[in-house]
Amino acid sequence: MTHTRFTPLAASLPSTVPFVGPETQERARGSVFEARLGANENVFGPSPRAIAAMQATAGDVWMYGDPENHDLRQALAAHHGVRADNIMVGEGIDGLLGYLARLLVAPGDSVVTSQGAYPTFNYHVAGFGGQVHTVPYTKDHEDPAALFAKAAEVDAKIVYLANPDNPMGSWHSGADIVASLSDLPDGTLLLLDEAYVECAPPGTAAPVAADDPRVIRMRTFSKAYGMAGARVGYALAHPDLIQAFHKVRNHFGMNRMAQAGALAALQDTEWLTHVLREVDTARTRIAEIAAENGLSALASATNFVAIDCGKDGEFAKSVLDGLIARGIFARMPFAAPQNRCIRISCGPEIMLDAFAAALPAALKDARG
Amino acid sequence: MTHTRFTPLAASLPSTVPFVGPETQERARGSVFEARLGANENVFGPSPRAIAAMQATAGDVWMYGDPENHDLRQALAAHHGVRADNIMVGEGIDGLLGYLARLLVAPGDSVVTSQGAYPTFNYHVAGFGGQVHTVPYTKDHEDPAALFAKAAEVDAKIVYLANPDNPMGSWHSGADIVASLSDLPDGTLLLLDEAYVECAPPGTAAPVAADDPRVIRMRTFSKAYGMAGARVGYALAHPDLIQAFHKVRNHFGMNRMAQAGALAALQDTEWLTHVLREVDTARTRIAEIAAENGLSALASATNFVAIDCGKDGEFAKSVLDGLIARGIFARMPFAAPQNRCIRISCGPEIMLDAFAAALPAALKDARG
Repeated sequence: MTHTRFTPLAASLPSTVPFVGPETQERARGSVFEARLGANENVFGPSPRAIAAMQATAGDVWMYGDPENHDLRQALAAHHGVRADNIMVGEGIDGLLGYLARLLVAPGDSVVTSQGAYPTFNYHVAGFGGQVHTVPYTKDHEDPAALFAKAAEVDAKIVYLANPDNPMGSWHSGADIVASLSDLPDGTLLLLDEAYVECAPPGTAAPVAADDPRVIRMRTFSKAYGMAGARVGYALAHPDLIQAFHKVRNHFGMNRMAQAGALAALQDTEWLTHVLREVDTARTRIAEIAAENGLSALASATNFVAIDCGKDGEFAKSVLDGLIARGIFARMPFAAPQNRCIRISCGPEIMLDAFAAALPAALKDARG
Repeated sequence: MTHTRFTPLAASLPSTVPFVGPETQERARGSVFEARLGANENVFGPSPRAIAAMQATAGDVWMYGDPENHDLRQALAAHHGVRADNIMVGEGIDGLLGYLARLLVAPGDSVVTSQGAYPTFNYHVAGFGGQVHTVPYTKDHEDPAALFAKAAEVDAKIVYLANPDNPMGSWHSGADIVASLSDLPDGTLLLLDEAYVECAPPGTAAPVAADDPRVIRMRTFSKAYGMAGARVGYALAHPDLIQAFHKVRNHFGMNRMAQAGALAALQDTEWLTHVLREVDTARTRIAEIAAENGLSALASATNFVAIDCGKDGEFAKSVLDGLIARGIFARMPFAAPQNRCIRISCGPEIMLDAFAAALPAALKDARG
């Protein structure tokens, strides 16, 4: 006798999760990490104005959030010079990825991404029965030409491209992305994940028209804006595609404090400038620490730095394990040859000092 | 040339939303409501300790929330006398309903609910291609025997039953619910929505064993705990079913402030007691207002009261429109004959006074 009859698709899905959270690791090791540098969180924190706005809204959480996200969408529209109907606000980019996969991916449909790129996209695609095809990175960069050629080959519904890239921190100019669109096959939507673009050099954001039906861009308050735990992301796309999200989304899913915080954060350009300066300082410091240990840091347009450990994935994993054992929460790329690297998020001096103190011993252990 | 190829299912879905938010109505009318009594929000607000916990966490939102919701699940397990693996925390009951529908409902699969019951369940089922079958209320109560008989007839994967019920406020004893389970067909899961159960008389919560494979119960911090805008709900069920949520959920979807707030709210039993007293006072007052206008209020085990306007749905809709025009946000049941009622959420004296002031004129207009 059973009362729970899963769908064949649900029954077939694995129970794996894309990421194990740092709290889980802390509970397992019995103490908190000295430096939380593994999830590309923004340790420099949210805008004080965002904090104040969230605190001021705490007493109002008896009310559901505005399901239209009206005020935030208006502000984002002004910020990007687009219309509010070009914007869908959702529960982080992760939430929006799930909705997009659900709208486009039926069992057997194909998508294309880079081998070792953001696993949560793959998770959502597989969750709707889609087939994930990959192409390798080219010199540690995602390769639009290769991605689009593969998309044509497998008749992909979506191509995922992060610019700047996670986990490598590499990037293309926005102009190059736009130029590459001439090779995007008919029938394929480019999902351009710009989660880290605020941290990138000017000209990295792709100057795609909001009404361009070929592209959906994703942005977030989790990275440069320092609000990962608030869960606010948004998509920029043609109104017809934006409108479709209403068919499947959790309309009352947004936290009311998060809505207020994101609105305040968007307006605090001074804090954003401050954070980006801190990120830049931290990137330099991480590269110095790498060099001091005979390792090389990859150039980064994000709030993290990939450090090439100089050997294979097994070696980098040993270094990573050594760091984690010493209280440094970090992560590493999933696929070869990018998994010769470890990935260190930007953080304040005290956390990077802790990383600098732990790295030599972690390397020594890894070298056996 | 198209780049967005929706799945056949997504293309077929309507763009309707279950509820229009009060902010949308306020923007349309150009002024805010004097009394926000339409969404069964808890106007008495969250626990001061929950507010303080959320405010204290605001600066920490640079961190993702714990994807395991470990601390909250442990506290809920202790609260209910179950194990943590009996509990799934999610983005409100709405979010959990979406996950459950996705796990069990494939195109063509059937579910059963009451005609005019919570539309968001129907929305999620339809969103995965499921077929919603309904049975009528019996004397303004959901009817387990009729629901389960229909489930057997249509081979339903899920039966939805809210106890207490929304929108009528009626209820069954938990013992009667448990007794009715002997009629639950093999192959059908009872989804017991207990969103309002804290507001109900003792004995309303169904004493179902957490490991009982026949039932999944849903609870929320949105109603008695006054945290609708935080988005924290949870499911209680057999560990095998709980475990399956990990296959499809947005693992990092919980807001970190909401996690902290819910934990604090759960511990503040004094505030809950205070709120429930206020709810009871408000229910009595709403019934008095109804009586003063020659109408009758239905008995309620929730934080709202259905008022029988004494005629048909068209008449009740006129009364509702008259209230909304006078600054009173309210809603009404969707289906006959329950739509002879309007539904007024509990609120403080000042809001109920505003309702009392508006009702006579709204009735007069409706009577033409």
